[in-house]
Amino acid sequence: MPSITLGELASHLGARLEGDAALRVERPAGLAEAGPGDLSFLANPKYAPQLAATRATAVIVGPGSPAAPCALLRVDQPDLAFGLAVGLLCPPPPPPPAGVHPRASVDPSAKLGPGVSVGPGAVVEAGAVIGERTILHALAFVGRETELGPDCEIFPGAVLYPRVRLGARVRVHANAVIGSDGFGYAWDGKRHAKIPQAGTVEIGDDVEIGACTTIDRARFGATGIGAGTKLDNQIQIAHNVRLGPHCVFAAQVGVSGSTRIGGGAMVGGQSGFSGHLEIGDRAAFSARCGVTKSLPGGRHYSGYPARPHELQLEEWRHLKALPRLRETVRALLRRLGGGDGSED
Amino acid sequence: MPSITLGELASHLGARLEGDAALRVERPAGLAEAGPGDLSFLANPKYAPQLAATRATAVIVGPGSPAAPCALLRVDQPDLAFGLAVGLLCPPPPPPPAGVHPRASVDPSAKLGPGVSVGPGAVVEAGAVIGERTILHALAFVGRETELGPDCEIFPGAVLYPRVRLGARVRVHANAVIGSDGFGYAWDGKRHAKIPQAGTVEIGDDVEIGACTTIDRARFGATGIGAGTKLDNQIQIAHNVRLGPHCVFAAQVGVSGSTRIGGGAMVGGQSGFSGHLEIGDRAAFSARCGVTKSLPGGRHYSGYPARPHELQLEEWRHLKALPRLRETVRALLRRLGGGDGSED
Amino acid sequence: MPSITLGELASHLGARLEGDAALRVERPAGLAEAGPGDLSFLANPKYAPQLAATRATAVIVGPGSPAAPCALLRVDQPDLAFGLAVGLLCPPPPPPPAGVHPRASVDPSAKLGPGVSVGPGAVVEAGAVIGERTILHALAFVGRETELGPDCEIFPGAVLYPRVRLGARVRVHANAVIGSDGFGYAWDGKRHAKIPQAGTVEIGDDVEIGACTTIDRARFGATGIGAGTKLDNQIQIAHNVRLGPHCVFAAQVGVSGSTRIGGGAMVGGQSGFSGHLEIGDRAAFSARCGVTKSLPGGRHYSGYPARPHELQLEEWRHLKALPRLRETVRALLRRLGGGDGSED
Repeated sequence: MPSITLGELASHLGARLEGDAALRVERPAGLAEAGPGDLSFLANPKYAPQLAATRATAVIVGPGSPAAPCALLRVDQPDLAFGLAVGLLCPPPPPPPAGVHPRASVDPSAKLGPGVSVGPGAVVEAGAVIGERTILHALAFVGRETELGPDCEIFPGAVLYPRVRLGARVRVHANAVIGSDGFGYAWDGKRHAKIPQAGTVEIGDDVEIGACTTIDRARFGATGIGAGTKLDNQIQIAHNVRLGPHCVFAAQVGVSGSTRIGGGAMVGGQSGFSGHLEIGDRAAFSARCGVTKSLPGGRHYSGYPARPHELQLEEWRHLKALPRLRETVRALLRRLGGGDGSED
Repeated sequence: MPSITLGELASHLGARLEGDAALRVERPAGLAEAGPGDLSFLANPKYAPQLAATRATAVIVGPGSPAAPCALLRVDQPDLAFGLAVGLLCPPPPPPPAGVHPRASVDPSAKLGPGVSVGPGAVVEAGAVIGERTILHALAFVGRETELGPDCEIFPGAVLYPRVRLGARVRVHANAVIGSDGFGYAWDGKRHAKIPQAGTVEIGDDVEIGACTTIDRARFGATGIGAGTKLDNQIQIAHNVRLGPHCVFAAQVGVSGSTRIGGGAMVGGQSGFSGHLEIGDRAAFSARCGVTKSLPGGRHYSGYPARPHELQLEEWRHLKALPRLRETVRALLRRLGGGDGSED
Repeated sequence: MPSITLGELASHLGARLEGDAALRVERPAGLAEAGPGDLSFLANPKYAPQLAATRATAVIVGPGSPAAPCALLRVDQPDLAFGLAVGLLCPPPPPPPAGVHPRASVDPSAKLGPGVSVGPGAVVEAGAVIGERTILHALAFVGRETELGPDCEIFPGAVLYPRVRLGARVRVHANAVIGSDGFGYAWDGKRHAKIPQAGTVEIGDDVEIGACTTIDRARFGATGIGAGTKLDNQIQIAHNVRLGPHCVFAAQVGVSGSTRIGGGAMVGGQSGFSGHLEIGDRAAFSARCGVTKSLPGGRHYSGYPARPHELQLEEWRHLKALPRLRETVRALLRRLGGGDGSED
């Protein structure tokens, strides 16, 4: 693991150093676990008490942090700066070499841009187009006529069905599925007859898609994920859903068919959205929200059915008061001689 | 993309045409987005107002729809007819050719029916039996002694463990897993000792299984999915579960071990069922139901714990009235001089 | 299928036989479905009435079970003993042969212990280390410098990203993913900038991981799963989570980043945990718990937000009484002449 002096680090991060520029750090670590040679950070005020007691050699902090028993690197966004520092201290494994591995299966009619890498066992079907420098890891699958922009990275086992489109710099994690059939049937009197799912999926630039996340192709037209949106693992996006740009969805969220969610949405884990809803821009949803109707953007929602967060908190307060309320009513009844004090 | 005249289309769909039979449509589109050359449909009355304003060339409608500023194709089931029309306008990619791709690995003892297609990287283990015309896409896996009926389609990355059985015309989407071990352990005083999962999975004819859905093999006997049942993505079916025929399960549902659900069940997304339950035929469950006990069929259930839908709606009404109820009791207390109007 | 005499079986299981030692059983079956030649068991008292009516040839029961119309094999733990018996009656398919299949892709720099089996289509990248007798099934993926202990079994389509570590006897089911990037971004004013996920995943000995379960690598340090812990299908474990030893998690649970859960936890299906929590040892959680704060161990929790189970039951009782409470208050108002009996 490489080590780096605090002087070099401060200059890389544009940080103000409070401490000895010649000291070296080797490893990133949490404030509580860090020891000599470790670099830590403080972004969440919840952990501020740990700063005073840390054994880290240096800590990246925000502008308002107090002094501490270690060197400090002051920046505006400690989270972001620590991310850069981790990249310096723990460089990722080298990218796989450009070229098609002899154990890959690439149809001769597929078009591969310069610098593309295709790993062992990966499969690229007829008519697919792979943008320059895109990496298809081992065992990735790209279906017929599917198109990927430049600098994408498709991890092992990810499946891109035929005729879907990915923009530039899209990352698709292992065993994610893009372009599976939308879930649509019509009862014909005897059986659920399949409704053809003839549309596509369009993924914008700079989207990241988590492991085992599934995004269905549209019935017609396109299921769409806006540029810069980040989807965690095990998320389900149904046919004809449209997500705006720069959304962040935590794991295990489900979005039902044809729902549109505006840009900048923040969605907590295990939330679910009914079909055919319209959600405005910059809406935030707590974990486990069950969203059953269209909602304006710019607000924070919670609960099931989802409502503005402060209303959910209020309902929880009312629920908590329920035992006392029943007690009060029983006491009233006893006092008024209306019976034995049971409620009826 | 092929185009088709409204006359031809009406005859294909058995529809009554109100408009010019020589007009041509090229693309399916939603009522709101459609323009000249587009074919749309109206099945959900919620969208009826869009019909008056549509710019589509033609719209498929039900018997009772009013006239509109475009040609109309009247049928009994617009959903179903539109599905057929989409199939005509957007033919799917050609099926892969019959035969075993040179990059597939098929054990010599496996039996492949006539017309079977095995894609690059697919693996078929010893003793497996693949019915005629079944398609194993690239990177699909069929374990030892597993048997598939005719005309199945197994998408990339789907895994069929050893010794499971699929009927005819079963479709298994990408990265679904059938036949993984049931989840069973018994604490032996020191550790969770594994209980062997020696049973199988039996999938009936015409079942469709979504991407990343997992169906565990039975402890003994069989986990079973009834004919014609449709499972969306990311559904979990535990060991020894039995689903009846013609069920429809939306995404991310979980069914715990040994639960039996009757035929024709409709289950909303993210619902969950406890183990060892018996659910009657034709039960319907709203999204996010948490079903904790056995329930008779033929009814609509909601909530957690799941109850008849109208009771859940009633509970929501009572909850909504709770703040006013507390206000009323406080006012009573003030009026009766019982204190300061707080509840205790 | 092999058959076995009750005498042999009793001696294998250390059971006390009540019945004819020469009788033979061939198949395991449930009490209700069993017929002649079948072996069944009674562990859950719920099924005790089925014992009196069973047609099984023999049943494995606990010490206190009454006599029955069949032979009985008495043991202390019928569940465990039946598991052993199933293993005898239904031996699993033979393990794949040791050695590297010609269709596997193993980097020359990977180190394979003696007796390792690598199936067709499996990929092992540079610098990986595979412990002795470990089985990599077809289409399994092991990334650069990842290390597996002895006697592991990695099922088809499972993906082990680079630089993760598995102990001995770890089983990873099909299409599970270990070591995908943790989900971390920081808004830089224009976009969600990716925070490097430079840590690893450490899986202890004797862990079993279900199909399509995903375990993210740490931001730095390690995401950890304690020895003997069992994870069902479709579970999501976020970066830097730490699970203690001997936990049992049912399907579709999600654990958010940096949460620590003590040893021996039992977690019901579809539960979720917020990030940065501390949960003590031997906590139990009902299905669908939503855990939003740190909780001491040794207790049973339910509901959302999760609370001690008895409090959740109490809340459900209060909710059930709510309609009657409203009725009572309305009656009081009418009696006191405070209006029309509506609540306000």
